[in-house]
Amino acid sequence: MSQTPPPRLAYVSGQLLPEDDAKISIFDSAVMLGNAVTESTRTFAGQPFRLEEHIRRLYRSLKVARINPGMTQANLLETTLEVFEANRPLLKAGDDVWIVHNISAGVSIPGSNPQQSHSATIMIFTAHLDLRGWAKFYREGCHAVTSMSRMIPSQALDARIKNRSRMAYTLADSETRLVDPDAQCVILDIHGFVAENKGGNIFAVRDGELLTPTSENCLEGLSRQTVLELAGKLGFPARETRLLPYDLYTADEVFFTSTPYCIMPATKFNGLPVGDGQVGPMTKSLLQAWSELAGVDIVAQALAQLG
Amino acid sequence: MSQTPPPRLAYVSGQLLPEDDAKISIFDSAVMLGNAVTESTRTFAGQPFRLEEHIRRLYRSLKVARINPGMTQANLLETTLEVFEANRPLLKAGDDVWIVHNISAGVSIPGSNPQQSHSATIMIFTAHLDLRGWAKFYREGCHAVTSMSRMIPSQALDARIKNRSRMAYTLADSETRLVDPDAQCVILDIHGFVAENKGGNIFAVRDGELLTPTSENCLEGLSRQTVLELAGKLGFPARETRLLPYDLYTADEVFFTSTPYCIMPATKFNGLPVGDGQVGPMTKSLLQAWSELAGVDIVAQALAQLG
Amino acid sequence: MSQTPPPRLAYVSGQLLPEDDAKISIFDSAVMLGNAVTESTRTFAGQPFRLEEHIRRLYRSLKVARINPGMTQANLLETTLEVFEANRPLLKAGDDVWIVHNISAGVSIPGSNPQQSHSATIMIFTAHLDLRGWAKFYREGCHAVTSMSRMIPSQALDARIKNRSRMAYTLADSETRLVDPDAQCVILDIHGFVAENKGGNIFAVRDGELLTPTSENCLEGLSRQTVLELAGKLGFPARETRLLPYDLYTADEVFFTSTPYCIMPATKFNGLPVGDGQVGPMTKSLLQAWSELAGVDIVAQALAQLG
Amino acid sequence: MSQTPPPRLAYVSGQLLPEDDAKISIFDSAVMLGNAVTESTRTFAGQPFRLEEHIRRLYRSLKVARINPGMTQANLLETTLEVFEANRPLLKAGDDVWIVHNISAGVSIPGSNPQQSHSATIMIFTAHLDLRGWAKFYREGCHAVTSMSRMIPSQALDARIKNRSRMAYTLADSETRLVDPDAQCVILDIHGFVAENKGGNIFAVRDGELLTPTSENCLEGLSRQTVLELAGKLGFPARETRLLPYDLYTADEVFFTSTPYCIMPATKFNGLPVGDGQVGPMTKSLLQAWSELAGVDIVAQALAQLG
Amino acid sequence: MSQTPPPRLAYVSGQLLPEDDAKISIFDSAVMLGNAVTESTRTFAGQPFRLEEHIRRLYRSLKVARINPGMTQANLLETTLEVFEANRPLLKAGDDVWIVHNISAGVSIPGSNPQQSHSATIMIFTAHLDLRGWAKFYREGCHAVTSMSRMIPSQALDARIKNRSRMAYTLADSETRLVDPDAQCVILDIHGFVAENKGGNIFAVRDGELLTPTSENCLEGLSRQTVLELAGKLGFPARETRLLPYDLYTADEVFFTSTPYCIMPATKFNGLPVGDGQVGPMTKSLLQAWSELAGVDIVAQALAQLG
Amino acid sequence: MSQTPPPRLAYVSGQLLPEDDAKISIFDSAVMLGNAVTESTRTFAGQPFRLEEHIRRLYRSLKVARINPGMTQANLLETTLEVFEANRPLLKAGDDVWIVHNISAGVSIPGSNPQQSHSATIMIFTAHLDLRGWAKFYREGCHAVTSMSRMIPSQALDARIKNRSRMAYTLADSETRLVDPDAQCVILDIHGFVAENKGGNIFAVRDGELLTPTSENCLEGLSRQTVLELAGKLGFPARETRLLPYDLYTADEVFFTSTPYCIMPATKFNGLPVGDGQVGPMTKSLLQAWSELAGVDIVAQALAQLG
Repeated sequence: MSQTPPPRLAYVSGQLLPEDDAKISIFDSAVMLGNAVTESTRTFAGQPFRLEEHIRRLYRSLKVARINPGMTQANLLETTLEVFEANRPLLKAGDDVWIVHNISAGVSIPGSNPQQSHSATIMIFTAHLDLRGWAKFYREGCHAVTSMSRMIPSQALDARIKNRSRMAYTLADSETRLVDPDAQCVILDIHGFVAENKGGNIFAVRDGELLTPTSENCLEGLSRQTVLELAGKLGFPARETRLLPYDLYTADEVFFTSTPYCIMPATKFNGLPVGDGQVGPMTKSLLQAWSELAGVDIVAQALAQLG
Repeated sequence: MSQTPPPRLAYVSGQLLPEDDAKISIFDSAVMLGNAVTESTRTFAGQPFRLEEHIRRLYRSLKVARINPGMTQANLLETTLEVFEANRPLLKAGDDVWIVHNISAGVSIPGSNPQQSHSATIMIFTAHLDLRGWAKFYREGCHAVTSMSRMIPSQALDARIKNRSRMAYTLADSETRLVDPDAQCVILDIHGFVAENKGGNIFAVRDGELLTPTSENCLEGLSRQTVLELAGKLGFPARETRLLPYDLYTADEVFFTSTPYCIMPATKFNGLPVGDGQVGPMTKSLLQAWSELAGVDIVAQALAQLG
Repeated sequence: MSQTPPPRLAYVSGQLLPEDDAKISIFDSAVMLGNAVTESTRTFAGQPFRLEEHIRRLYRSLKVARINPGMTQANLLETTLEVFEANRPLLKAGDDVWIVHNISAGVSIPGSNPQQSHSATIMIFTAHLDLRGWAKFYREGCHAVTSMSRMIPSQALDARIKNRSRMAYTLADSETRLVDPDAQCVILDIHGFVAENKGGNIFAVRDGELLTPTSENCLEGLSRQTVLELAGKLGFPARETRLLPYDLYTADEVFFTSTPYCIMPATKFNGLPVGDGQVGPMTKSLLQAWSELAGVDIVAQALAQLG
Repeated sequence: MSQTPPPRLAYVSGQLLPEDDAKISIFDSAVMLGNAVTESTRTFAGQPFRLEEHIRRLYRSLKVARINPGMTQANLLETTLEVFEANRPLLKAGDDVWIVHNISAGVSIPGSNPQQSHSATIMIFTAHLDLRGWAKFYREGCHAVTSMSRMIPSQALDARIKNRSRMAYTLADSETRLVDPDAQCVILDIHGFVAENKGGNIFAVRDGELLTPTSENCLEGLSRQTVLELAGKLGFPARETRLLPYDLYTADEVFFTSTPYCIMPATKFNGLPVGDGQVGPMTKSLLQAWSELAGVDIVAQALAQLG
Repeated sequence: MSQTPPPRLAYVSGQLLPEDDAKISIFDSAVMLGNAVTESTRTFAGQPFRLEEHIRRLYRSLKVARINPGMTQANLLETTLEVFEANRPLLKAGDDVWIVHNISAGVSIPGSNPQQSHSATIMIFTAHLDLRGWAKFYREGCHAVTSMSRMIPSQALDARIKNRSRMAYTLADSETRLVDPDAQCVILDIHGFVAENKGGNIFAVRDGELLTPTSENCLEGLSRQTVLELAGKLGFPARETRLLPYDLYTADEVFFTSTPYCIMPATKFNGLPVGDGQVGPMTKSLLQAWSELAGVDIVAQALAQLG
Repeated sequence: MSQTPPPRLAYVSGQLLPEDDAKISIFDSAVMLGNAVTESTRTFAGQPFRLEEHIRRLYRSLKVARINPGMTQANLLETTLEVFEANRPLLKAGDDVWIVHNISAGVSIPGSNPQQSHSATIMIFTAHLDLRGWAKFYREGCHAVTSMSRMIPSQALDARIKNRSRMAYTLADSETRLVDPDAQCVILDIHGFVAENKGGNIFAVRDGELLTPTSENCLEGLSRQTVLELAGKLGFPARETRLLPYDLYTADEVFFTSTPYCIMPATKFNGLPVGDGQVGPMTKSLLQAWSELAGVDIVAQALAQLG
């Protein structure tokens, strides 16, 4: 006799709630002011990957956003692991999850002062790592497309404050889907340099060297950091620099990095093939090295979801 | 025998709920992506002011944000009035309310595509118009202070899409409160021109002429529009132009405009007096004219709240 | 017995040659340095339209480009009319032509100094006014699409020098064709303001007012000038200002202007309908007024070419 | 009895023609749209220098310019060598030539779509390497002068697409000739950083270190590349960075690099002496090393032309 | 028997001193920090012209520069007239003078805080109005030349604070003298728009309309103001706008305005003639109208100095 | 019987004068045009520190400012030492002095040409090194605050020309004192990157690496240079890069460098603690190393002044 599985549980400011009941007030500053910072960590083979570092970065974001979370990094780590463990029974063999933190400045009273006046709202949840939207790209590569809108400059809001005021990213992304419904966006900064992919980072390979934008105009991603470390181990020269669309047009390889998919090859850029139009050898080596580091065949796991 | 008053009711996607139950999923794109647009309308003597125009502008925001609200402007107007009427019994004599709309792109599934995939989340609520934070400024004027951070440029996100991805505003506001805990912020655009006050607009009076930034770098506020219309009626010359801090330093009068307070005089700018340091005559005339238009003594109403 | 019609004749630096023989040296500075200025005039009912003004503007371009054409405006006008008359026998009833001037700085010797050292090369030709690519847009409107690349700023090369160094235009145009193969490009300047359409100009209608960018970042088109004059006659308020994509997204009407098609309505902008998605009334009135001015039904003429 | 030498032959889209007959249609997109890419290679002692690399770069330019040349790199190399060999009999002892490629998108029909619709036009010619305009500068140094106009920014047209839409370069060059008729131009980018010399690159020597702009705002010249390689061999530290006019004013040495002259010392910058006003030792060493690499005394060859 | 005339007297912080004794401490903030504001007024027929307005503007500069002058506008006016009267005996018939105010923040103690800590230093002097450097330009027009360096942007230091930190102006001026030792500089702002002439303003005439930059990037000169008022009286349409070098290249007339010379025609711009290369009719009319307003034949007075 | 000490002597263009008599004409270009360059050297234990380098840099400033000092570097060095020795008797045990050079373009005649026309004015003085304003910061750290105004960009005036046209610095400094009367200013460049502190430089420590802005937007300070050299000796990795406010908010340590105080720790940035809010270990090590290099306990010397 089949049994309904128990629901996934999410943590909201002290309570573990079934996902459907995980709600916040419409007066929360996350809703009213987009005043929330965030991190997304993934697991590999059921183990959180670089979770402490994600939490460390989260606290940097909180500081600069002037949000007082009301709990220490150690508490948050402990709580996070409790949320994860509470949901572990739901994890099927071979599957992994996202662990997402959203911390807002709490309820906001409409009025003259938008600064934090209530306890922070702490949201922690694990989400099924649905890789179906990206899985085929490991083999074929995706289509990277430049958006028409440009990145919010750091003097207005530094992308390294990983935050939930993300409308500009969503709009830039929507523009590139006019070119290709599966397009992955390449957002330029206001001077025309390559910045990021709505939260993910971008790498180009040129003459055997790995190139990625500095963190002047993009998030300093931990996946980006992992790639730079893997490149070091593999002996690939790597450099943080300023890239222009020309550098992507003429690159031998291009890929994105982000928490869920780790490394996503791009084989087309604005309608033109990248290199020979195939996923390149350095991209493959880095993916392979990451799989070894994580103890999970990243590509196989994603392809398995396609059934 | 005293009775507990019934709670205020808020509308969330089809339901009228007591405020404390007015919640949305932590997976809503308002929370996950800041992907929500908004309007705030106020009442005067219990009558919504320019509500149709606010809703018209809301639909412009929805269009450009590529959010499908799933209901017509006429329906939204009708629903809004129902929410307002449901709460009218709570309105005390002499009081007025904010009517706030927040519409998000609905629940967002973490994954490759941030575009709207679910029904929009429609939030409508009325809020007590707490004017205590501003009331004294009608008499004394406030301290306008320039933030260190700059306005998000329109090529990244046009301020005329009135949206809830407002972290940059909140941070700019917090910077000015380092100078004065009651400071009202003056945000400059990335070229150094005066843009706006976290959603409010800014006017300067110079040699009898009313000046305000064009809408290139700020919200095209309806309060701003009202002031321009009142100026026309009063015979005050007015011009939309580009203003620099120098223009505020040397102005005869400076004031802000926004839905809750209508017109807020500033008598100090970055520590220096504006004009003679008193609320100026054109500011007073415009406030007076607005009170007449609205049928409410705006200043008296606010001061009454100070008790 | 049918006869082969005589070939069209083109003028090249003093000679009237059959089109197939109209050639210039591969060492000409037009080829080697893109060092050529240009004008395109069209006829209506076989009469050149504003030809003197086009030639006057051509001489302004020559001056600023520091090219000495070696002939006066009067001579050039006379020569132009001779070329036109020489080809008039080829003009079928109801047809019109483009009259194109290209003037380069003459042969360029590779070496240290790219300045003009030889007689200018004067090219004048008439071209069949093939309107088939645009004809359907008069009825349906075209799809205006923002390019990813930005306009060359005036501090590098002022667009009002109407020149043949047009690679940037062609590349911007190609980017928008990734969205729609029939897209008409909207190029933004480096600050994100609407500039022009690879040589054509852009207008928006908002609340009954006609808006078009100032000539700070675009060609000061004579078709644009004609529209402004017609608007004056029709009593439509018109204003040169700075426009952002938001202004096109929320406009009631949008259209392009350029010599061959005069006025080209756009009913879609970046995938979203302009206004109600139909060609708007002010656009139609202006087209009608231009037809009357020109003595040619502009729309009918174009549609006739579709057969 | 003296004999007229046979004419030099140029290749135009499949045909080897005497130079005087080497022409293209006035309707070619090279003329109509500046839509052509280019390379210039020189010979040393009758041997093409880095020809394969020039052709490789040419194909990068073609790709990004979306021009289909209709022939492979291998074919183009072969054809180029045939053109060169056909003209070798004309080469006098001690002389060298430029080998120039210009490839346009072919004939362009005036109308709605400027994209390539015809076969590319392939132009290949060899030109006498006339060094007389530069020869004296090897001894005395030239006068480097900043132009008033600024470089086209990469977000409008990346300088690494080596193209023939060069009017902006020619105008910037003409501005500096107002200061000195023999001035060599130093073009700044729109932020005021040193970019390039109408296609050539710029180096400064400071405290024994060789400095040159990154390729963010200038052509990635192969002569520049050669200098960087020679510096490596000679043990000179070298760095790609951002340079300002101040860096040239206070440099110990300044020089330009470009295909025809290889290295051109500048001993004056905007009227002030560079260093002690003499050609500097590092410049001389690099010139010497290049002469050795090329098997030709570069300076002697140029001076010989002065007779 | 000839007598040595008494020396001119200058006012320094309360004392009237012979010019040779008019000195300030080398520790004054005018010297140490360039921390001084200034005005220059001229006389016509021995009457100060718009002196009250100059003083009013001086106090605006003082306010924004946060310098406390320690005396009222009325006192300063009175003192100024005393200085002028003290020197009136030296004024020869037909001559006029400059009246210059320099007010610094007083002595500055090197250390942690550059803010004003001592009494202001007030300098007032009259200077012989030596017009010989400009006189010939009234007839021939001057050569306007664009500098390579750009205007300090208002977000760094607003030009309307008329101040003595003028090194950038002097350097820009020196650059244009590389082109022509008598060049009058045209400084562009950092976006390439025409700003000003080291303190003077610039006008262009185009199709009968008078154009001058807005005060966004230049001093709001009182001579500029006088020209705008005279234009109004003469019925010349005038507009404040943004101008590019193209506008000066193609203008019918160009002139500068500044206190000493009032209006200075330019007949050459960057080596090319302005209009027909002659001083234009609108320039002449304005000069004539100013002479009438001032009661002095401005041109005759200057030419008389050439002897 | 006590004796009045002899006055300090200052050098003004050839004369050694008691400080109270050290004056320059109010017509000097230092006063009239801010046309002066400068250096400040300090002594340690009565020995000038890097004086030759300061003079070398002064001559670079003179060159780029086009000021002819009329004396050689060797002469100036000799004269400087004479001034210093003349004042040595006044130096108390344990005290040190500033040696300041100001060189202007000499007297400026108001008129058409601001270029140098007279002998330079050479000012050299020694000043008591009053460290009381900074002393407590060695222990507690100072409060670094971002100014609202931005740095003058190098394309207008390169900060490496160390000059006395410093009004923009003083105004930026005054803005930060609105936040905290003891604030030390952090000036951003017009793109939002950290530039400098009114003449001092800024360092951040992150993960054990020392970071400081490149000299693109700030003075290339000799104290900055000393810190980089000391870091090399101590084995601290150091890098010149571009820094944003985020980098200071999240730094482990922040400090300023300048001639008088050498290294000044900052423990607060815009109201938030830097690191743990204490003076950090790398800052202390560098201060210690500098003290050893200089033979003076820098901190003790300053604290001694507090009495």
